[in-house]
Amino acid sequence: MNGGPARIELNEVGPRDGLQIEPNFVATEDKIALVDALSDCGFARIEVTSFTSARAIPALADAEAVMQRIRRRPGVIYTCLVPNLRGMERAFEGGADELNLVMSVSETHNRANLRMTREQSTAQLLAMLERAHQAGVPCNVSLSTAFGCPFEGEVAPAEVERLACLFAGAGAAGITLCDTTGMAYPTQVAQLCDSLAQRLGDALPLTLHLHNTRGMALANALAGWQAGIRRFDGAVGGLGGCPYAPGASGNVNSEELAHMFACMGVETGVALSPLLDVVGALPRLVGRALQNQLLAAGPRLRTHPAPDWLDERFGKSQA
Amino acid sequence: MNGGPARIELNEVGPRDGLQIEPNFVATEDKIALVDALSDCGFARIEVTSFTSARAIPALADAEAVMQRIRRRPGVIYTCLVPNLRGMERAFEGGADELNLVMSVSETHNRANLRMTREQSTAQLLAMLERAHQAGVPCNVSLSTAFGCPFEGEVAPAEVERLACLFAGAGAAGITLCDTTGMAYPTQVAQLCDSLAQRLGDALPLTLHLHNTRGMALANALAGWQAGIRRFDGAVGGLGGCPYAPGASGNVNSEELAHMFACMGVETGVALSPLLDVVGALPRLVGRALQNQLLAAGPRLRTHPAPDWLDERFGKSQA
Repeated sequence: MNGGPARIELNEVGPRDGLQIEPNFVATEDKIALVDALSDCGFARIEVTSFTSARAIPALADAEAVMQRIRRRPGVIYTCLVPNLRGMERAFEGGADELNLVMSVSETHNRANLRMTREQSTAQLLAMLERAHQAGVPCNVSLSTAFGCPFEGEVAPAEVERLACLFAGAGAAGITLCDTTGMAYPTQVAQLCDSLAQRLGDALPLTLHLHNTRGMALANALAGWQAGIRRFDGAVGGLGGCPYAPGASGNVNSEELAHMFACMGVETGVALSPLLDVVGALPRLVGRALQNQLLAAGPRLRTHPAPDWLDERFGKSQA
Repeated sequence: MNGGPARIELNEVGPRDGLQIEPNFVATEDKIALVDALSDCGFARIEVTSFTSARAIPALADAEAVMQRIRRRPGVIYTCLVPNLRGMERAFEGGADELNLVMSVSETHNRANLRMTREQSTAQLLAMLERAHQAGVPCNVSLSTAFGCPFEGEVAPAEVERLACLFAGAGAAGITLCDTTGMAYPTQVAQLCDSLAQRLGDALPLTLHLHNTRGMALANALAGWQAGIRRFDGAVGGLGGCPYAPGASGNVNSEELAHMFACMGVETGVALSPLLDVVGALPRLVGRALQNQLLAAGPRLRTHPAPDWLDERFGKSQA
């Protein structure tokens, strides 16, 4: 098997991408405690919140308060999603280390999700990149539906490349390829990552943002890693989802990403044990039951006592 | 990304490996209907039942009746698990096309699961291989805990290779590497498959039997495919599990395996649509609720109607 980078970065997007669609409002104090706990897990980046209108996303109406009161752990990059120039100014004010801008590669998803044409979104993102450059704040651009659109089906790789190159040329600090509703598959991920890396070069980092809708999230992460990808988004406990694709599951679990790469000896900086503690506290945080296989089973080398009757049957000096 | 074989075989083990631990007894008629429905999905093999003692596994006490009354679809290989020579004679009687023998690579799991030492199991399997050779019925040998043991932790690859070579030399028609409790990870799978293929050569097919306990089943399947593996076990709906590892999930879902390989253009022979029909009927069959992401979300290119308000907002000629 051809291996990938020896060291990668894991970005935690749960506080923004997960909490934004939770049915119960998570108290500001609890959000802050969540981000602080995640800060101690070793993530490279934490997407803390979104500076959007409280009417559009009431769940994140407390963006200012959260950004103001989280504990900033040195070395962690605290990012915020910003939908427009107004949100960008609020994020500067809030002290975001990095911003995340977003548009969809497919026209219908862009219209449904952002209520703009791609042309309008493109113009807006270019204006935002210019403003952020003036302010000296790095901006990552996330391209939704990069591996397929829940309305249109297949998305042309050439269109992903066109947008990625456009924003790279306009000063984006990185590009995230988002598998918004879990339509990506491993050979597709490998091909798109390969061809984009050739177009963009090493200077502009690519991030993979995967969903586990059809069970392929870790297989896609493996394929991306083999193609040289060094940055992966994940959400603690697999929080998140997409309102436009019934049955679409949440983001890939951060803990499953961290666990798989740790098993393979790839350095992520993330410590699994405190992360699983955060996972265990999530049901109380979001006020609903959550199942978590990795939490239930433990890391791969968690062993169990042999049945009592073995000694009796085979004698003490077994195995 | 280095690709694997253009064509692979999927083996369905749900009727045996899944139903054997279901809490509710599945009626004989329903088992037969399940196997018949799976026969129409295009699997290479179906592990129909186990010829074990009714006391040990009451769920499969109707092995004779099931084998007698299933419809044999030409081209499908109907296999049975047999734990000992007595079970083997019953399986011959029942008309099994192929038999599956099993022992664990780790001593403690072998003792707990089979109530024998590995030495005893090895002797028994060699006797069974000899008897099957006389009878002209091919035998596959499944090696449990090949990627880790829930009691002992790491399992030495050299020990897997020793047993695989021993049984290959004694006439086994194939070797299955079982990740009994979901401890395998991709680079480990690739390394073990590579080194075993070198030892055993092309003549003896290797099968991967994966579990999804820690979310890595499809990533491990991808790694195995890249290493040249052409046979994969799966259980419809992810049925199955292991009584000795709390939190261990069932087998990898057959439908997720079939879907991933279909996305990648790898020929499996399995048609997803009738298979998802079988998945949808499972809760009634086993008498308990089952969640299934792929069934809920549909294949990756299942598209959804755009929101109604798009036309109003952007005009009819959108996208």
